[in-house]
Order: sequence, then structure tokens, then C-alpha cells
Amino acid sequence: MARLIVVTPNPAVDTTYAVEAQAVGESHRVLSVQQRPGGKGINVARGLAALGHDPVCVLPLGGASGAWVSSALAALGLAASVTPIAGVTRTCVAVTDDTSHPTVYNEPGPAVTAAEWHALVADVARLLPGAAMLVVSGSLPRGTDVAIVADLVAAARAAAVPVLLDVSGASLLAAADAGADVLKPNAEELLAATGAATLDGAVAEVRRRGAGLVVVSRGTDGLIASDATGEFAVAAVPGVSGNPTGAGDAATAGLAAALVDGRTVDDALAWAAALGAAAVLRPVAGEVDLDAFRRFVASAPDPTPTPHPHESSTA
Amino acid sequence: MARLIVVTPNPAVDTTYAVEAQAVGESHRVLSVQQRPGGKGINVARGLAALGHDPVCVLPLGGASGAWVSSALAALGLAASVTPIAGVTRTCVAVTDDTSHPTVYNEPGPAVTAAEWHALVADVARLLPGAAMLVVSGSLPRGTDVAIVADLVAAARAAAVPVLLDVSGASLLAAADAGADVLKPNAEELLAATGAATLDGAVAEVRRRGAGLVVVSRGTDGLIASDATGEFAVAAVPGVSGNPTGAGDAATAGLAAALVDGRTVDDALAWAAALGAAAVLRPVAGEVDLDAFRRFVASAPDPTPTPHPHESSTA
Repeated sequence: MARLIVVTPNPAVDTTYAVEAQAVGESHRVLSVQQRPGGKGINVARGLAALGHDPVCVLPLGGASGAWVSSALAALGLAASVTPIAGVTRTCVAVTDDTSHPTVYNEPGPAVTAAEWHALVADVARLLPGAAMLVVSGSLPRGTDVAIVADLVAAARAAAVPVLLDVSGASLLAAADAGADVLKPNAEELLAATGAATLDGAVAEVRRRGAGLVVVSRGTDGLIASDATGEFAVAAVPGVSGNPTGAGDAATAGLAAALVDGRTVDDALAWAAALGAAAVLRPVAGEVDLDAFRRFVASAPDPTPTPHPHESSTA
Repeated sequence: MARLIVVTPNPAVDTTYAVEAQAVGESHRVLSVQQRPGGKGINVARGLAALGHDPVCVLPLGGASGAWVSSALAALGLAASVTPIAGVTRTCVAVTDDTSHPTVYNEPGPAVTAAEWHALVADVARLLPGAAMLVVSGSLPRGTDVAIVADLVAAARAAAVPVLLDVSGASLLAAADAGADVLKPNAEELLAATGAATLDGAVAEVRRRGAGLVVVSRGTDGLIASDATGEFAVAAVPGVSGNPTGAGDAATAGLAAALVDGRTVDDALAWAAALGAAAVLRPVAGEVDLDAFRRFVASAPDPTPTPHPHESSTA
């Protein structure tokens, strides 16, 4: 049981409204309201806790909604280090009925001041000694200087704790430039951030910038990885269908758990694929089917340590 | 400056999301979030405060959303007596864009237990001595026994404080049966609650049950009233357009303010019409244009103490 620090830069109250029938311009009686603490890092922490690890959530929270997230994390048994902010934690509303796709409203989220970010980095620095890994997962609130990403990587390096980031856009490049040990974007995010024409080119670009291990999730196409020792790939668990929301975060949790256990990159990819699939089987994002995870890991095919079968890196 | 007790049985966090273009099944970036403490009684209290009176809001509140309402009332300078409940205060979301009508999602609201209602009635009873009026405005939360309405009327009578209710459905009949001094439904609510074929028949029915003064708001058709001394009517202020949300609550505030000032029913109707119109001029429900109110009252036509020009009461 390892202690991991998990930063969620832009947490939310995820709210789901069930209504009879959605229609623009109409008044709807909400039949049921479900709320859960949202944000990619929180899903990662839940996955780590399900695997028996001891995550500590670090997150900026403010307002009544922030207080709710704090109490909801406690109710889930998750340890949290809250950095208080003057802004109000965002709410995201998904409206569902029996016929249409969900209609989603994502609040912009509070501005977090430079002083509040420095307080959060100081909170992380206090927690790092003795931690097995620092994980940073999810978007930065609007207006946040991406330098915060470099600050978090620097804090981990100063404490000799490996750092894994699942971030996108300019944050992803900043993490690579800062020498992150592990990056775990999905394929679309990696292509968008680097502007590379191919996935191999994109992986090579972030490795060239300074990232150690780069793991790319590709949905039903499985995961690929690249580090100084070579390239790796794992197929997705076949025949799994359900709710894909949060599956990428569960994959991050599986990856992190395997790495802090000292497992090989091949095993870590297999764990990531298995925990991601175990999340798809659960209707609620953030939850995983642990029996399914064990089954998927046990039945995983032998890893393919040879280069994965698409164009090789050009870096 | 009189002290009035204003009960809001089912308060809410009223949230407005501005989005680019509404579409069912799509994900929307919320451009701006506005929140205000909602519930008819809160609007009434704001109208009374605008007129220089000293309202005390009594309301059941619970959860983080309830704490937000409490702090928002304080920020508005409104005194509040909060009855804590185990449930979570509801949120109502209105989604707006530049082209469609708003799409509204009304959460059902918490169940309030019998013990919590008894605590609220006890809070009201403590506040009543010396108060000029008890006002009860808005729907009851789902599952609430309408006997609570009779309890509130009885508490006011025991303290010799007049009671005005703007309630609907079974609550309206219960208020009449309990001998409420003033009822102020709108025409649709009064017809629906009584099942009467005509408005005069409906007014007669609630007066027969025990209501003293019955004031019926009819939107752009103005207001009518009936009590033991006769029947009254006032036209709506002409040429006013804007946001009708909350206008009926402002009318209730104008009515209550005039009555506690000892004014005639005719004056009270004129004040109700004027403050209702003054609310229409403001884009945000709960606010009133006080200069417009003074202008409207000053320019009101002489009252028509003769029966209003439709079929007379058949009771």
C-alpha cells in the first residue's frame, strides 16, 4: 500500500439530472438529482484506492460547492488536502432522458490566483516526502499560467518522487519540458498539443522535450508506450461495453499503481488496459469493477516487447 | 418601518447559465453563471425591504446549497431565521442563449420532515410578537402535509398578527379554511384550486371557506379584490414591458406594505400593481425599480370602488 499524491487542478461538482423528455425552451421537472465529486484526478484517486493504495487528493476548492466536494471526498473515504480559494468550485450538469444523448453544461470554473497556486504547490511539497508518486490529472482552470505544471514537476523532483501527468494542450508540453517521468495523454490530446502529423512523431516530440515514459491511450485501440528502453503496446480488453466516462482516468490509476509496484512497462500497460475496462463496466464514472480487473489482468496475453506494428519513431 | 415575517417554504438556488446556442444532446460551455437566492417569499421580502420595511425571512435550508442561500440573504442585507433541515435545498437552472426561450430545470426540492416543520412553526411563533404581518409565499416542498399552512395561520392568530398567504392548490384551500386574513393567488391558481367555473365564483368560494380579503392578480389585466366590505379592482400599469418573473411577488410585497401601513384596499391594490410593474422593469427577479414605483403610484387613476365590470359574485 503506497501513498500517492493526486492533484486535481479543476475539480467540479458533477450533477446528473434525469428528466422525462428534453426540449429546448421548455420547463422540466427534474425527476432525480445525482451528484458526485468530479475531476479527472478524483477519478484517478478512486481507482488507486480501489487497488488498495493510499491516495491523498490535493485540490483547490472554494464556495459552497467546494465545501460539498470536500465532504463528498470524505464520504468516499478519500484523504484530501484542500487549498482554499476565493473563487467558487464549478458545477457540471448532465441532463438525461430515455431517448436523447445527455445535454451537458460545463461551468467555466473559478479563476485561481497565482498566490493560491503557490499555496497548492506548497501543500504538495509538504506531502511529497515518503510518497511513492505524484499524479497530476485534468485541465487547468481558465487563466492559469502553465508554469504551475513545471512547479509541480520541480517539487516532485526536489523530493525525488516520480511524477505522472495526464494533462493536455500547453500543460502537456510544459510537463515534457520540465522533464516529467511519465506522461499519459490520449492520442487526440497528444496530437493536438504537439501538432505532429503522426502519433509516433508526437510521442517522439514530447520525449525529445524531456519526458521519460510516454503512455498514450487510444480507446478501443489499446495503449502504446515509449521510453528510453523501447516501445510497447497493449490491446484493449476485448468485448467490454458500458460507460466510457472515467475509463481513461482508471487507466491512469492502473498505470500508476503498477509503476509504484515496480512492475515492467508491459505489465503497467496491461494494468492500465484492465482497470480502464473495469471502469467501463460500471455505470458511474470513478468506480471500477475490481473482480473484472483481476480477471482481465489474469487473462492478459503475453506482452509484445517488439515495436508496435505501425510506423516507427522518426525522432 | 414595520417588521414582517416572511416564510418561504421551498427556497432554491436560482442559477442562470448563458450559453452560445442551446441544443439537446450537445455539450455546452457555460459562458456565465449567475446565482441568486430563489423562492417567492424571498422576492417578497426583497420588495418589502426596498419599500423601507424590515422583513425577516423564515425558511428551511439544508446542505451546501442551503448554506449558500443563507449567505446570499446576508449579502442582500436581509435578516433570516433559518430552520436547519437534513435534506438539501434545491437548485433551479435556467439556460439562456440569444435565440431560444430559456430551458428550465427545476429540482424537486428536499423532503422536509414533520419535526422540521414543527421547528419552523416554532421559529415563526417566536418571531411573531410585535410583527406587523406574517407573509407565507410559495409552494410547499413535495410530500409536505398542507396542515402546515393551518399551523402557520393559527400561530399568527394566536399572536394577533394578520397573515397573508400567496400559496396554491390544496395549500390555498387550507389557508382559506384556517381563516387567513389575506389570500393573494393569481387567477389561474385560484381557478385550479377551487375548480370554480368563473373567477367570481372562485373568489366567493375561498371567502365562504373563511378568507378575509382575497386579492387576485391577473397579469396585464390588473388585480381584483373582495372582502366583507365589497369588491375592488385596479388596472395594470400601462406600457410596461420587461421581465415578468417575480412581478407577482413584488405585487404581494406592495400589497402587504400598504396593508401594514393601514391603507385602504384600493390603495393596497394600486401599490401592488405599481410594485409589480416596477419589478417588470428590472431584468433580475427580486429587484424593483423604486423610482418607477413612486411614479406609478403618483399617477395611479382614482380607484373604482364600484363592483368591477364582470359578473358579480354568486355566493
